[in-house]
Parts: sequence; C-alpha cells; structure tokens
Amino acid sequence: MMTDALLRELRTALGEQGVLTGNDIPARHGTDWSGLPPVVPVALLRPTSTEEVSAALRICHAHGQSVTPQGGLTGLVGGARPSDGDIALSLEKLTGVEAVDLQTSTLTVRAGTPLETVQKAAEEAGLFFALDIGSRGSCTIGGNLATNAGGNRVLRYGMARDLVLGLEAVLPDGTVLSSMNRMVKNNTGTDLKQLFIGSEGTLGVITRAVVRLHPRPTSGVNAICRSPDFAAVLGLLNLAREALGGGLSSFETMWPSFYNFVVERLPELRPPFPAGPELNVLIEAAGFEPDRDHERFEQFLVTAFERGFLTDAVVAKSEQESRRFWAVRHAGSEYQRVLGSITSFDISFSNDQLGDVVEECEAAVKANWPTAYALSYGHVGDGNIHLIVNIPGVEVQPRNEIADLIYPITGKYGGSISGEHGIGTRKLNYLSYSRDDREIALMGLLKRTIDPRNILNPGKMLPLDAVAGPTGEKLALD
Amino acid sequence: MMTDALLRELRTALGEQGVLTGNDIPARHGTDWSGLPPVVPVALLRPTSTEEVSAALRICHAHGQSVTPQGGLTGLVGGARPSDGDIALSLEKLTGVEAVDLQTSTLTVRAGTPLETVQKAAEEAGLFFALDIGSRGSCTIGGNLATNAGGNRVLRYGMARDLVLGLEAVLPDGTVLSSMNRMVKNNTGTDLKQLFIGSEGTLGVITRAVVRLHPRPTSGVNAICRSPDFAAVLGLLNLAREALGGGLSSFETMWPSFYNFVVERLPELRPPFPAGPELNVLIEAAGFEPDRDHERFEQFLVTAFERGFLTDAVVAKSEQESRRFWAVRHAGSEYQRVLGSITSFDISFSNDQLGDVVEECEAAVKANWPTAYALSYGHVGDGNIHLIVNIPGVEVQPRNEIADLIYPITGKYGGSISGEHGIGTRKLNYLSYSRDDREIALMGLLKRTIDPRNILNPGKMLPLDAVAGPTGEKLALD
Repeated sequence: MMTDALLRELRTALGEQGVLTGNDIPARHGTDWSGLPPVVPVALLRPTSTEEVSAALRICHAHGQSVTPQGGLTGLVGGARPSDGDIALSLEKLTGVEAVDLQTSTLTVRAGTPLETVQKAAEEAGLFFALDIGSRGSCTIGGNLATNAGGNRVLRYGMARDLVLGLEAVLPDGTVLSSMNRMVKNNTGTDLKQLFIGSEGTLGVITRAVVRLHPRPTSGVNAICRSPDFAAVLGLLNLAREALGGGLSSFETMWPSFYNFVVERLPELRPPFPAGPELNVLIEAAGFEPDRDHERFEQFLVTAFERGFLTDAVVAKSEQESRRFWAVRHAGSEYQRVLGSITSFDISFSNDQLGDVVEECEAAVKANWPTAYALSYGHVGDGNIHLIVNIPGVEVQPRNEIADLIYPITGKYGGSISGEHGIGTRKLNYLSYSRDDREIALMGLLKRTIDPRNILNPGKMLPLDAVAGPTGEKLALD
Repeated sequence: MMTDALLRELRTALGEQGVLTGNDIPARHGTDWSGLPPVVPVALLRPTSTEEVSAALRICHAHGQSVTPQGGLTGLVGGARPSDGDIALSLEKLTGVEAVDLQTSTLTVRAGTPLETVQKAAEEAGLFFALDIGSRGSCTIGGNLATNAGGNRVLRYGMARDLVLGLEAVLPDGTVLSSMNRMVKNNTGTDLKQLFIGSEGTLGVITRAVVRLHPRPTSGVNAICRSPDFAAVLGLLNLAREALGGGLSSFETMWPSFYNFVVERLPELRPPFPAGPELNVLIEAAGFEPDRDHERFEQFLVTAFERGFLTDAVVAKSEQESRRFWAVRHAGSEYQRVLGSITSFDISFSNDQLGDVVEECEAAVKANWPTAYALSYGHVGDGNIHLIVNIPGVEVQPRNEIADLIYPITGKYGGSISGEHGIGTRKLNYLSYSRDDREIALMGLLKRTIDPRNILNPGKMLPLDAVAGPTGEKLALD
C-alpha cells in the first residue's frame, strides 16, 4: 500500500514533475490496447534518467510497493495495465537516440523512444532499422524489447530479440545492470540481456539499448497473389524463398474468411481482387538492385503460375498502390468500427500446419455460433496467424468461451498461444497450452530469485502461484 | 568424493558400458584442445538417452558429486577439461539426427552429434546448416550450443545462438527441461533456452536441439584482396556489404604479421601473393544465381579498386583454388608444428577499432620481447580477431605475462576477452575486463539458484567466489 512516506521519498528522488497522483495522472496510463477496463495507478512515475529509474525501484523495493512498467501502452494483452494498487512507471520521459554508429551499424537509444523515431534516425544515417509494427508511432523501443515484438519483417530480419546487441536494465531492487555491448561476438558468460527481452517487464525495467542496423534496401516490390489452396500457398512461400535471392521480406496471407469480409465491408479500400474462394498473399521483396529485383520478381511470378501456386497476381506499380495493398492487410484496425467488440488471437505453429489449424478453428467457432465471424490472416512465413472472432448481435462477447475453443486446438497442434503479443494478464490462464509445468516452474524460480519481493509487474506473464514458490519437488532444487 | 555407493547407483542407472573408471577411461577425456595438462576424471559417464543423462545428474546431485559435461573436446579454454575429482559426462553416445523438416526448415538433433554430420544431413535434404568451424569433424552440436560457437559465417547467419529454435536440457538436479520449439515466433514467457546457450555447461546439460536451416546457396565466389591499410579494409567491408546484395558470407583479414609469416614458413600453401606490407582479405560471397553473382562480384572488385580499397585481387577459378585460399587463412593449425608452444587470443571489438588494437597489441608484445612473433588475423566482419604470440627459444611460454599485456588493452577499448571461444578456466582471471561486478554477480546468482550444490562444471566460466554468494549489497536482493 502506498504510504505518505513512500510518496515523499519518491518526490525527493524524482522531483514533483516526476511523481503524479490522483487527477494529475492522464487517463491513458490506466490500460493498454487490450481493451481491458482501466485501472488508475496509485501514482505515475516519470523518471528522466536511468538513475531516476534506479532510485524509484530502490524505494519501491524497500517499501514492497508493486510497479507496472509502461512504454507506449500499445500492448494487446494487458501487460502494461496496472493491477489494483500498482504504481505505474512510465518511460515516456526517458527518450532520445544517443548515437548512430555507421561503422558498427548500431544505434544506441533510450527506452522511451518511439519505434518510428528509431526508424527515422537510422534512415537519416543511410541505414535501416528492420523492426516494424503497426503501432510504430506510439509504441516505444523499450516496450518492443520487453515484449520481443515481431511484426512485418520477422521473416527476413528476425524478432526484436535478434536486433539487440546491448541492453541496460534496472533490476527490481534498483541495481543498474549495464550490458551496453556493441559487439557481434561476445562470449563472456551467460547472455544476461536475454532475461529481460520478452519477459514483459517482470524481471527488470529496460532503460537503454544498442540495436543492430541493416543496409537500407533501395528497391521494393509488393504484390498480391491469389492461390487456390493452402498447399499452393506453401509452394509459393518456398519458391519465394528460393527465387527472390534472400529478398523476401513479407509473406502475409489472408484467408477467404478475412479477405472477403474486407472486400464486402470496406470497399473504400479498393482491394485488387473481388471476393472469392482463394487465399490471398501479400508478398514484399526488398533489395539493392532495382531493375534486377523487379525482373527477378516477375520471373518468380511466372514460375509460380506455371507450377500452379497462384492463379492471379497484381504487382503494385507505385508506392501508393503498395500502401493500398498493405491497407487491405492492415484492415484489422477497422474491426472495432465494423464489427464492434472482437476476440482476437495471435497463435503460432509450424507453417505447414496453418491450413489445418485455420480450418479447424473457424469450424469450431461456427459449430458453436453459426452466425459468427471467424476471420483468419497472418504472417504465414513465420507460422503466425491472427484470428478475429465476433458473435453478431451479442453486446458482451463470450471471450472466455471463445478462448476455451481456440487454445485447446493450439495445444493439440503443439502451437504457441502467443506468437508475438505476449501473455500479459489476458492469456495467463492458457499458458500451460504452450509451456509445460517445468518450464513454468523454472520461470517462477527465476522470477522469485531476481524479484524476491515480487514488486515488478506482479501477476503478468506468469501465474502468481508459479511465482510464489516451488510447484514440484524437482525444481525446488534443495 | 566419489564413493562406492555413488558408483553403484550410476552403474544401476547407466549400465556397465555407461560408467567407465580407471584405465578404461580413454585418455582424450582428460582435457580439450586448450593445451592444458590432462586431469583423469574419477569416472566417465556415457549416457545413451536424455533419461540416462537425467538419472546420472540426479544421482550426482544427491551425492554432491561434481560433473564436467563433454562434447567433442575441441574447446580452447578448458571448459570441458575435468577439475580434480570431477566425473566426466560425455554426450558421445547420444547421437543422431532425429528429423529434418523441409516445410519448417528445421532439423532436430541429439547433442552428441558431430557438427559435420548435421551439415551433411541438411545438405542431403537440399538445405544448409550455416554454422561452420574448423573442428567440424570432431566438435558436437551440443558443445557448439553450450559455447555459442561462432566461426566462418557469423557475418551472414549469426552465432550458434541465432540458429537455435528449440532446446532440451537437463538441469543439475536431473530435471529435464524440454523446450523443443520449432516455431519462429513463440512469445510465451522468458526464453529459457538462452540460459543454456553460451553458459558452457554450468547451468544445464544440453541433450537435444531444434536448429534452423537455410536455403543452400548454389553459387560461391572466393577471392583474396590486398588492401593498403586498415582504413581501406573497412572501406572494402562496407562496400562488400552494399554491393554483394546480402551475399557476403565471410570477410577474413590477415595482417602482414600473419600473412608474411605464413608465406615464408609454409610455402607449400602456395599463397596467392608474396609477402608484403599490405593487409590481405579473404572474401566469400554465396548466392543463388551463379552467373549474376560472379558478375556482381567482378563489379564490386572494380569499384573497390577505383576507390583505393584494394591494390590487387585474385578470384578463385575452381573449388580447389578456393580451398587453397582458405588453407592460408586456416594455417593456424600449423602453428604448433612451426612455432612450438603458442599463446593465442580471441578478442572482439567494434570493427573500426581493430586497426588500432592490432597495432597496439603487436607493439606491446615486441616492446617486451623484441624477437617475439605476434601474428594477427581474424573475422574482421564480426569485429573478432585472433592473435598468436610466440617467444622464440623459450620452452615454457610466459602465458600469464603475455595475457597480462593483451587483456588490459582489450579492456581499454571496451572489447571482449572472448569473441567466440568462451571463458572456461583459461580466461577466468580476466573476466572482469569484459564484464562488470554487477554482471558477474547476477551470473553468480543465476548459477547458485539453478545449481545450488554447484555440481555442474564448477569453476568454469565464472570465478568460484562469484558463485559462492552475494558479492555486493545490491545483488543480494534481500
């Protein structure tokens, strides 16, 4: 519980501007993009330096005060939404690109910097920061790393984890752990930064990072292809990997459920094909030889057509047309307006399983709610799909019932209940479909070792009972 | 201390063939390629399954018996060399590629499988396993992962860590932690496999892995170039990254100290250039369009020449000639024969620092021992160099004195004392040049949490006093 003493200490350490309470706390700090109802934090901290983050956590640790770290608040699973009684610690004042190093192709950045700012800084230096997600203008690089963000270019450049060379994080007791490595190779012991990447702010608060930049592609080709069935989509994917000479950067598939819905409900998007029974694939290739890249892409389409992997294709003739194709793929942002409340999934598999999985998930939803919408699309190159469910005419969607249908299917295929969005609080009850008891127990052991007072984002990512103590004789380890 | 009871239990669990003692233990299990004198383990365990590894560790854990895991015994820092009183646990009987999955481009393998076997299995399936190091015929995939091996293609495909999707490891108490994920995207909590990769067998014994395969390049170009100075080498590197369209896979630089020594001492290698004051760069590009790739490479060389990045270049006209170029680069295996005992380094930096670092290191050695050989070469694309030192006419090389010269220079530049070989026992005393007290303390905390009896490779990677307990008030964490 927040006491006057705690508040006084925090104000002394962070100044009046660094500690907001009551009505001074902007409403947006109450929740994230998960759609979960807001919870007003007991205080909002806005440290402006690593030292202030350290001081804040040291004080909260001493008082046993729970803390929810916050980046851009764009998460979809409630990871940055305070629990009752939490202090929110926002990194929004800890911003700025500190350095772009052309020689090592690295960029050093403070955690609260928006992703788009990082992308622009790289671009201004003639390089390329490959991470890209729809919320780029709002999300922060610290949040991207804490959640191991994925996005549109994982196929080529990997997840956020793969783009990090060095990290600075503050441990729950205020210890600053600075591993701001800029080297590609550094085998000097356990790679500690991995503890914090993708752990959703439960083990430390990321304050700075060194990220890896890539050469900036000078050519881009975007096309939408129609494939007769999922086997053809897989054939198309494998051919694209071979034939585009490493240039393939996105391979996004829209099942008919999704595509036809978009075509019918959002004609203003001017989709390239009418509704139909086929699957639709948005392919992006990026390279360094504009003429040659276009020629190679055309050749790839011809071969794909000859092999029956596609029946039709449209190559974007302009930047504008490319954006139009992507608008179809990103029509997800319009769901709320068109459908009202939705239940969405972010599930991941071996990519050869996706055809069966989509069929089974859509059928399961329809079997229970014959009028339901079950719309499937996603990053097929990465084995990751999103499924959107809406039961028309129902004001409060039966989210739990829908989840109880879909996650068992995920488990049956050995899939992941979260490809990229994380666990937060939304998926806590389903974690065991993707992680077994021993993995959960080891995560709990790490959590209570590094955060013995359980002050850092408690109740997120891991069930509280896994954190509380040994769950089995083995991982008790004495 | 190994008791009769312990031995009986191990024999019951692993059978007579699984537990060797005394003269039955092959001599090679006493040490690795570090050159450190052998220590005969008190027993050699050769489990044939994950279950037997688990049983062996459970028994050793119960008895407080220390265990050194062993792969191919090719490590260079003593990590697999038993300490006095250790049992050696060899993975040599836990071998075999279990599956190659074309659709997901993954390969599932048991830890004791030699790297070369993994490479061949991928190749037979029409794919490519990118990890490659000189000891490929002897080293094992489990050892590669436990040490996060680097090698010749890091520039393009990353370290061993970057090639792992799933891992199975046995914890010190025998718990089998199976995270045999085959998915590219799986954000369901802390990425536990990272604890074991690069931790040199101190936190768990890797038993199986799912590794990532790549498309097999269908064309390769190898060339040796001469550059007037290190600035030109960096220019050449940056140009190669841009101009080879992502095809650059190796960029290995031989300073005159190394190259001229090789030319003069090993004329049978038939090196392409005579001795001279220039730096020599071996470049490999690999792609999927043989004609186009060669054309692109020629154009790259022309541009590099025009910009003054090189003064001469020879492109290999055959596989055989490529192998001849690489033999010059790998002449390191001949050092022992030519020089006798050597002291070698594996140090890593931002790549723009390498010119100064090499100059300073070679000068420091010569200042102390004017007749010394100090030969420099390495993976300049990765910022990683190897330095070989020999003081002629001295039977017992002053290894510690040489290290005490080189590692402070490494520390001064913020470099790594180990780019790829790891810490083992050889570099324990120098760890603090690359990791600060807090990082070492957190590694110690992880070690004593996961291995509270300190039975797994004790005294490797981390100084024993860091493992023993809190070294500072902060990381005591209560």
